[in-house]
Amino acid sequence: MNASGNTQETFVRVLYEFPKGLDPERQGKILAIGQTVGSISGDTAGRFASYQGILESVSLLPNGRGQARVLYPAQNVSGDLGSLLVMILGKYSLAGPVRIVSLELPPGYGTKCRTGFEGIRERVKVTGRPLFMGIFKPALGLSPDDLARILRDVGEAGLDLIKDDEILPDTPASTAISRMEACRPVLEEIERARGRAMLYAVTLSGRADRLLDQAKRLRDAGANAYLLSPFAYGLSVMEALASHPDTNLPIFAHPAMAGALSGSPDYGFDMRVLLGTLMVHGGADAVLYPTSAGNLPIAPETERGIRDILQRSDLAPVPSAGVHPGALPRFLPDGDTRIILNAGTGVMDHPGGPAAGVRAFFEAWERMCEGSAFTLETLPDGPLKEAIVKWGT
Amino acid sequence: MNASGNTQETFVRVLYEFPKGLDPERQGKILAIGQTVGSISGDTAGRFASYQGILESVSLLPNGRGQARVLYPAQNVSGDLGSLLVMILGKYSLAGPVRIVSLELPPGYGTKCRTGFEGIRERVKVTGRPLFMGIFKPALGLSPDDLARILRDVGEAGLDLIKDDEILPDTPASTAISRMEACRPVLEEIERARGRAMLYAVTLSGRADRLLDQAKRLRDAGANAYLLSPFAYGLSVMEALASHPDTNLPIFAHPAMAGALSGSPDYGFDMRVLLGTLMVHGGADAVLYPTSAGNLPIAPETERGIRDILQRSDLAPVPSAGVHPGALPRFLPDGDTRIILNAGTGVMDHPGGPAAGVRAFFEAWERMCEGSAFTLETLPDGPLKEAIVKWGT
Repeated sequence: MNASGNTQETFVRVLYEFPKGLDPERQGKILAIGQTVGSISGDTAGRFASYQGILESVSLLPNGRGQARVLYPAQNVSGDLGSLLVMILGKYSLAGPVRIVSLELPPGYGTKCRTGFEGIRERVKVTGRPLFMGIFKPALGLSPDDLARILRDVGEAGLDLIKDDEILPDTPASTAISRMEACRPVLEEIERARGRAMLYAVTLSGRADRLLDQAKRLRDAGANAYLLSPFAYGLSVMEALASHPDTNLPIFAHPAMAGALSGSPDYGFDMRVLLGTLMVHGGADAVLYPTSAGNLPIAPETERGIRDILQRSDLAPVPSAGVHPGALPRFLPDGDTRIILNAGTGVMDHPGGPAAGVRAFFEAWERMCEGSAFTLETLPDGPLKEAIVKWGT
Repeated sequence: MNASGNTQETFVRVLYEFPKGLDPERQGKILAIGQTVGSISGDTAGRFASYQGILESVSLLPNGRGQARVLYPAQNVSGDLGSLLVMILGKYSLAGPVRIVSLELPPGYGTKCRTGFEGIRERVKVTGRPLFMGIFKPALGLSPDDLARILRDVGEAGLDLIKDDEILPDTPASTAISRMEACRPVLEEIERARGRAMLYAVTLSGRADRLLDQAKRLRDAGANAYLLSPFAYGLSVMEALASHPDTNLPIFAHPAMAGALSGSPDYGFDMRVLLGTLMVHGGADAVLYPTSAGNLPIAPETERGIRDILQRSDLAPVPSAGVHPGALPRFLPDGDTRIILNAGTGVMDHPGGPAAGVRAFFEAWERMCEGSAFTLETLPDGPLKEAIVKWGT
């Protein structure tokens, strides 16, 4: 596409899909011109040619939907995700239905994660098995002392990571700092006792400047991981968080609001772009997404696609929503252990309490490794059996 | 809803709409509980009751669609738009189709604008007529000297405001600072010559920390207005920009990406919420949106709704996209002059050049005031007639 033929370095490559009835060639041309130079008077076209998008290819799918692949010169954007979104969808999003189904960025575009999945594994000193993550529940209304008590229970039971619920922001009733201050000594206690750290991802909130300041103060207060909802706060905020030396902690990205950008088949983004590609280039270390074996609607191939994109760049996939111990084999497709399995009620609402919930997951993992069945008749009494009585397999 | 009956102060009120077939009562309850306390064990329900959302009402529309109005305690969020979005849509957005059609926030929630429409009017010293805004075109590829030359032309012709295209970010070929440095002396010249300022909204870009730093440097370099695409960069970034003492300039919010959040009737937000309510509480001073008299699809009642919400809080409505001089009466519904009319090619691609484009708008405004016709037969030769020959009425 250019003299060296090296399109990958110098172009952003976007595959758009349009509903049946829209001409993908016409729409592709509108995108290639409208999202770059805009209007061009004939006499100056030559001068602006290097800024113009290129309609690379067009196709019609068997279901009648059209696709257009557009190349945009990378020089048109400033290396961040905000200006990228303005270019690849921006104003055109108001023109009618269009969906970005694939996005290829120049290597190094955006912000790379600093910790990554390997870094997270090193901190919790676990290899050869999936990591297990819990969520403090109920989401709201627990006191810092409640959190510390729960944390001690699940930490002693061996849980690798825990997080706030994403809907628990910094409020007078529960400041993020007070949560950290209550939990820090317990985290230190757990690390001393078992010889490996436990990570606690604390929810970041507030307008961008305050959120970034809060992240620094939390790190000073002992935080060892962050939870951020980039689609609610802005991908540009995640990029900033992943760049500043004083906020160098693993970032767990939460998919809150992602459904508004990906739910309709005719608008927004395929989830693989949203929760895969944009996370890889946005600085996330770990990405939560609904698992197809859980209680939210997502196709198995979409989940697989997200997981593949994340794993290829050493980000941690964190399948979530409806995860409980008895169904562990369903949550670890092909026995893939390169994931962080995240359970809220599946840990916290175990009939025997949160620690029993954690033990049930480890018991399930051991049975999976042995190849033992998960039937009530063959299970010994204990946390896993109780979990399966409550939630099934 | 509480002892004093004062729901407005203490609750966030959201009206959700669901496609036909979904039970709004069931979904409303899931939202009220799931987006607040999450799971509740029976024995602790009392303690968490003050955090629970309340399903206020449910209705079925004649077209079969369901609506549910949910009240959320304002104490659950931290007074910013990020945590608000996580609460009111967040994780639930992944559960299936849902659209927020109305949003009522406690007074003072979020970030209030500092300049407002009255402040913008004071700066450009114009009352009693709409303000006219241009856009530098082509969007990309103009040198700082090109911009300065165009600026002088349109400023001398009387244009009130001008902006970068939103797709022109900070790049090596065109840094925002170099644009400001080239344009500052011209802006000063224009103000001296006509005795009133001209505003130039320069595009902000980059990851959040850099964008906010850039905004400060641009103000030092003479910038007198900002252009930000909050749906690409984050509403939390706009809130930060609207709060810091060193970035106290009017913010022009661009709707880039808004279509991805509002295009489908079953997902995301009604445009009145997105480009009205969230802008009022997000710190914008002026909001661009497609006009129903232009070239992008938007219903007249939606446009009217956006305009009403903005005007009620002294934000400037900026109808855009397909605006040209001959159609001025269509762009000023009911003769409403409390708007900023924004034209890109409608100014820049005028057959007589950008200055003639500006003159054509003023000529059109005078004819409107006189009640004169816009027919080619009755028009004198001049910029307006040339514009109508090119673009019609």
